[in-house]
Amino acid sequence: MNEKQMAGGKAADYIEDGMTIGLGTGSTVYFMLQKLGKRVKEGLQIKGVSTSDSTTQLAKSLDIPLISINEIDQIDLTIDGADEVDAELNGIKGGGGALLYEKVVASISSKIIWIVDSAKLVESLGTFPLPVEVLPFGSHQVFRLFEKEGLQPSFRKKEDAYFITDSGHYVIDLKMESIKHPEKTASWLDGITGVVEHGLFLNMADLLIVGEAGGPAIIYRKK
Amino acid sequence: MNEKQMAGGKAADYIEDGMTIGLGTGSTVYFMLQKLGKRVKEGLQIKGVSTSDSTTQLAKSLDIPLISINEIDQIDLTIDGADEVDAELNGIKGGGGALLYEKVVASISSKIIWIVDSAKLVESLGTFPLPVEVLPFGSHQVFRLFEKEGLQPSFRKKEDAYFITDSGHYVIDLKMESIKHPEKTASWLDGITGVVEHGLFLNMADLLIVGEAGGPAIIYRKK
Repeated sequence: MNEKQMAGGKAADYIEDGMTIGLGTGSTVYFMLQKLGKRVKEGLQIKGVSTSDSTTQLAKSLDIPLISINEIDQIDLTIDGADEVDAELNGIKGGGGALLYEKVVASISSKIIWIVDSAKLVESLGTFPLPVEVLPFGSHQVFRLFEKEGLQPSFRKKEDAYFITDSGHYVIDLKMESIKHPEKTASWLDGITGVVEHGLFLNMADLLIVGEAGGPAIIYRKK
Repeated sequence: MNEKQMAGGKAADYIEDGMTIGLGTGSTVYFMLQKLGKRVKEGLQIKGVSTSDSTTQLAKSLDIPLISINEIDQIDLTIDGADEVDAELNGIKGGGGALLYEKVVASISSKIIWIVDSAKLVESLGTFPLPVEVLPFGSHQVFRLFEKEGLQPSFRKKEDAYFITDSGHYVIDLKMESIKHPEKTASWLDGITGVVEHGLFLNMADLLIVGEAGGPAIIYRKK
């Protein structure tokens, strides 16, 4: 069993009958969904809220029932991956391009579990390029602002064309190397006109499940 | 000459040969564009950056040359309307639904002129409902958050369907009555996941032209 499979499978154990579950996106979530699909076939009653077109397709193929985010009051538990996580359980997400819906779902979740392989743990965030979702309109101006600030921006591309998110925006990846003050960086990005959302997920995850050679490690966020 | 026509016409006088001009949206901007169209026919050389589909159409019908925002480095002057303006030249914009592109254009403009009729001047912002542009995904959660905060939100509708902005988002209008701390409100809204942009335009306008019975009044922002 690889680390992603181990973390994904373990997380599915936290899902209880009657819950509304936020379903993240990515290669580790893939394994969680496989396990969840099995539990649903065995009779588990849950409703899933998807964070991306790809997760919607996968969930449907596994007969996991889905509900629209606008039809619910809250989400009991969200299980998602992360591209980088520090010891405070702050993370960078969005390498797969689904950060916006993932953050919306996270923001209304009572509990959040992140699942990662051990390579995702870092001392300080920023080695993984920070994704910033931007409006296409004026995006080159935002790009130049990032350039001026020395953040080595690059537009995410897909086969020579701009990568387009599920909600029709572009992504600019920032090479920050080390993000010393994540809260400050987040609030600076929040205030930039044309920035729709960014990949800094701070004070959100309650629990981290890490796939490791000896079995999954579980880390709680210090409150 | 009505007040809007007076303010719009006066603003067009500030446009000089060779400038890149941000073209706002709305009923007062309409008159500015009419005058600008005349000046272009007389030989004025400018390039316009439009803030909405409706302004693009109007500018084209007047033979005002347009350029894409992503092809320019900066905007020399933007002329736009406002729904409410206080004595500090802070304003609420977005009654027409074009606030997002208007704010992107404003954020890269060297100089900003707002043009209004005298009814738009207020002691404190907030009587005019504050428009907040939100992602459709999760918008009902944002709506409920606003409800909890006592902000009397309402989804903007168009013939019983959701009003959709030029970039595919919804608008929630907030009845705040009086916004006592505009900076705080702006930064709170900036930080809400699912909020794309809001109609508080603070410390942006350099000059306000107000249509008045005795002729246009010109108010400069205190620096």
